[in-house]
Amino acid sequence: MGVRAPQEEWMVPRRWYNIVPDLPKPLPPYLKPNGEPVRPEEFEVLFARELVRQEFSQERWIPVPPPVRDVYLLWRPTPLLRARRLEELLKTPARIYYKFEGVSPPGSHKPNTAVAQLYYVSKEGAGRVTTETGAGQWGSSVAFAASLFGVKATVYMVRASYGQKPYRRVLMELWGAEVVPSPSDRTEAGRRFLAEDPNHPGSLGIAISEAVEDAVKTGAKYVLGSVLNHVLIHQTVIGLEAAEQIRYFGDYPDYVVGACGGGSSFSGLFWPFYHEKRVGKAERDVKFVAVEPVAVPTLTRGEYIYDLGDTAGLTPLIKMYSVGHGYKPPPIHAGGLRYHGCAPTLSLLVAEGEVSAVAYRQREVFEAARLFAQAEGVVPAPESAHAVKAAVELALQAKREGRPVTILFNMSGHGLLDLAAYDEYMRGVLQDVEPTAEEIMANIARAKALLRQ
Amino acid sequence: MGVRAPQEEWMVPRRWYNIVPDLPKPLPPYLKPNGEPVRPEEFEVLFARELVRQEFSQERWIPVPPPVRDVYLLWRPTPLLRARRLEELLKTPARIYYKFEGVSPPGSHKPNTAVAQLYYVSKEGAGRVTTETGAGQWGSSVAFAASLFGVKATVYMVRASYGQKPYRRVLMELWGAEVVPSPSDRTEAGRRFLAEDPNHPGSLGIAISEAVEDAVKTGAKYVLGSVLNHVLIHQTVIGLEAAEQIRYFGDYPDYVVGACGGGSSFSGLFWPFYHEKRVGKAERDVKFVAVEPVAVPTLTRGEYIYDLGDTAGLTPLIKMYSVGHGYKPPPIHAGGLRYHGCAPTLSLLVAEGEVSAVAYRQREVFEAARLFAQAEGVVPAPESAHAVKAAVELALQAKREGRPVTILFNMSGHGLLDLAAYDEYMRGVLQDVEPTAEEIMANIARAKALLRQ
Repeated sequence: MGVRAPQEEWMVPRRWYNIVPDLPKPLPPYLKPNGEPVRPEEFEVLFARELVRQEFSQERWIPVPPPVRDVYLLWRPTPLLRARRLEELLKTPARIYYKFEGVSPPGSHKPNTAVAQLYYVSKEGAGRVTTETGAGQWGSSVAFAASLFGVKATVYMVRASYGQKPYRRVLMELWGAEVVPSPSDRTEAGRRFLAEDPNHPGSLGIAISEAVEDAVKTGAKYVLGSVLNHVLIHQTVIGLEAAEQIRYFGDYPDYVVGACGGGSSFSGLFWPFYHEKRVGKAERDVKFVAVEPVAVPTLTRGEYIYDLGDTAGLTPLIKMYSVGHGYKPPPIHAGGLRYHGCAPTLSLLVAEGEVSAVAYRQREVFEAARLFAQAEGVVPAPESAHAVKAAVELALQAKREGRPVTILFNMSGHGLLDLAAYDEYMRGVLQDVEPTAEEIMANIARAKALLRQ
Repeated sequence: MGVRAPQEEWMVPRRWYNIVPDLPKPLPPYLKPNGEPVRPEEFEVLFARELVRQEFSQERWIPVPPPVRDVYLLWRPTPLLRARRLEELLKTPARIYYKFEGVSPPGSHKPNTAVAQLYYVSKEGAGRVTTETGAGQWGSSVAFAASLFGVKATVYMVRASYGQKPYRRVLMELWGAEVVPSPSDRTEAGRRFLAEDPNHPGSLGIAISEAVEDAVKTGAKYVLGSVLNHVLIHQTVIGLEAAEQIRYFGDYPDYVVGACGGGSSFSGLFWPFYHEKRVGKAERDVKFVAVEPVAVPTLTRGEYIYDLGDTAGLTPLIKMYSVGHGYKPPPIHAGGLRYHGCAPTLSLLVAEGEVSAVAYRQREVFEAARLFAQAEGVVPAPESAHAVKAAVELALQAKREGRPVTILFNMSGHGLLDLAAYDEYMRGVLQDVEPTAEEIMANIARAKALLRQ
């Protein structure tokens, strides 16, 4: 009875899976403010052509270019482990497995798509990309990928994080990226916010505006770390490997679980299992569980509507679960889950009942993460800790019901650069925050008014 | 032509290798201040009995207890990668491989022995261990291992690091250890230094004194992270795996390279290759290269003498290369290499010409580490960066000589908790420091006077 699945080069996929042709309904189109569908070529102002092609692709399988796969080999295949010590601690009959994406150089799943995007950008001749980052997980992945393909990267980093969380800034600089605290005087958007307040702490919404404005004005390409189809497609290397690896245990998941912000790490894990289910290859009636913070309850308390992808209104309208683009996520430590919306593919699957969603509070999430660290060693990223909490709850439910179910969850990153958050948790100063019903309803109403839904 | 060797459970060794019976000469005994050899039972006041047995063992192979191997499986076998991008960047005909120990939960090779030591401590019924730590690599590995075996751990952490480098302190606390800034008022030694200076910044020497005094007075066991035979024996899992893995490339090293402080990570990698060479299994005339900082030039400028293992004189006298126990290592960032001596086994092999040594300056070491991070992604720990620098130099020499040699080095840890050091390097404020000949000669003379050598 093993603990680790084998990791061998051939397991790293040569093609990505695209769920779009397998969805139970057609994916609603991206819309302009006037209600007309966005045409693919309109995306090409910002994104590399091949990425736009993938965004609108109806092909089920998309080849991984050999130079991208070569980079994946620097850390892939990632480990798939059975958390046997955790099972024993919980005295559960459940078998718990986790796919560990924290072994990548930036420490999370994000480079799975950053590497692909930077490859296409470089191949199409753009010499520079722009992007935004909060705490720095996405920005450091872009810096890493840009360094490998000889592309310059400018990362607009939320000023509060730039000052308070210098480690990921240093990591980006080490990989050669230019890191600009946002709001900055580089863009009109930035200057406008600086004029209001010279010490403006910034926000992800403002940083997006700066990165997009910079790209449009200079001919650089913009890269995005979640939500869009092409981003999620690249993440399917996670689930394709996991589906191979879990069979080494003679096992198959009853539950596939992942934390959900924009939805990319969870989709990367569960899409391939969804495909197996659809074509009759799944060995059990596998269920899919998305986990989100109570503080940003997109899937559990939001509505499935057309809403903006960003705060400032630069993106098209996207049909998705949303708590409204005007919602101000409380400052929880799981920065990657502070998003008002959710990937359109995942939203459709939740709306159709193919995926269920559950929400947890910050403190109970950190408690589960500490339990996991003490049992299995790995310190989960605050985002991934949400998946840990859900897996623990499912395992305890299995114990109550006496059912030896198999749970597979995504440990999307490690928490070694988030230890200050664990310190707050252990010192008892972490707060649980929950939006009021009025706050959510008002924000959703404002979003629905955009298209008079 | 692959990049990653396979990682499979069966590769994790079921026995450790002990070099002692294979040394070209008998290992000189540990001595008391009066010149008499220390008897094994005298070590048992501090260390677990089985560890003392291993310390004096003449057996070539020592079984890994199944519960220890079970814990190894949480992160082992570690990856062995070919650094093909680095080779291309250097335009060298050399093939460069590295064994990556940074995938362990604490991020370095240290848990290979911490887990073994804590297992024996727990098996022999001690409920608590004490140890010291500087920046926290060793302390966090002890905390991790103690958590897994249900043993309490008290870690005396140099006060300056406790204040300035809180991340590894939080990591230790997350794994359940008690972390005490040293000097503390818990011990006589600590109170003495606090009386001198209530804001005493502490030192590794003082922290050792506190940990040892605490153990002796309370009946706890003391655990040590390097230098001693039993510690190095546990680290051979690194080289045993590597010798298996490098053969998947149809290759074999001409050079095995590692950074050297106390000598445990380097010994862990090269011992098994040394054994293969001795029994005629080595496929080439493999050479062994230890790498140290110019600031603490134990092997390159020290002498092979009997000296104390610590600063305060609590340890026996050890025959080893030393720059003198009174030598004050400059505050370089590679904290793990700031040791005045070197493992007795490695010292004997250097004295016999079986291992060569080379020293580099801090800034050139960080420059090599940045090059590596940009080529291969992984951010090396400052200690491991010394091995990177030596591997790069050997690869450039191979280029000058047109020889396609194979270089294998130990990436003993990642640098994600050392990014402040990289920041200093990139801002150009890192200093190179080098002891004067007088300083070293005076310290060595003082050490030699201990036994009138």
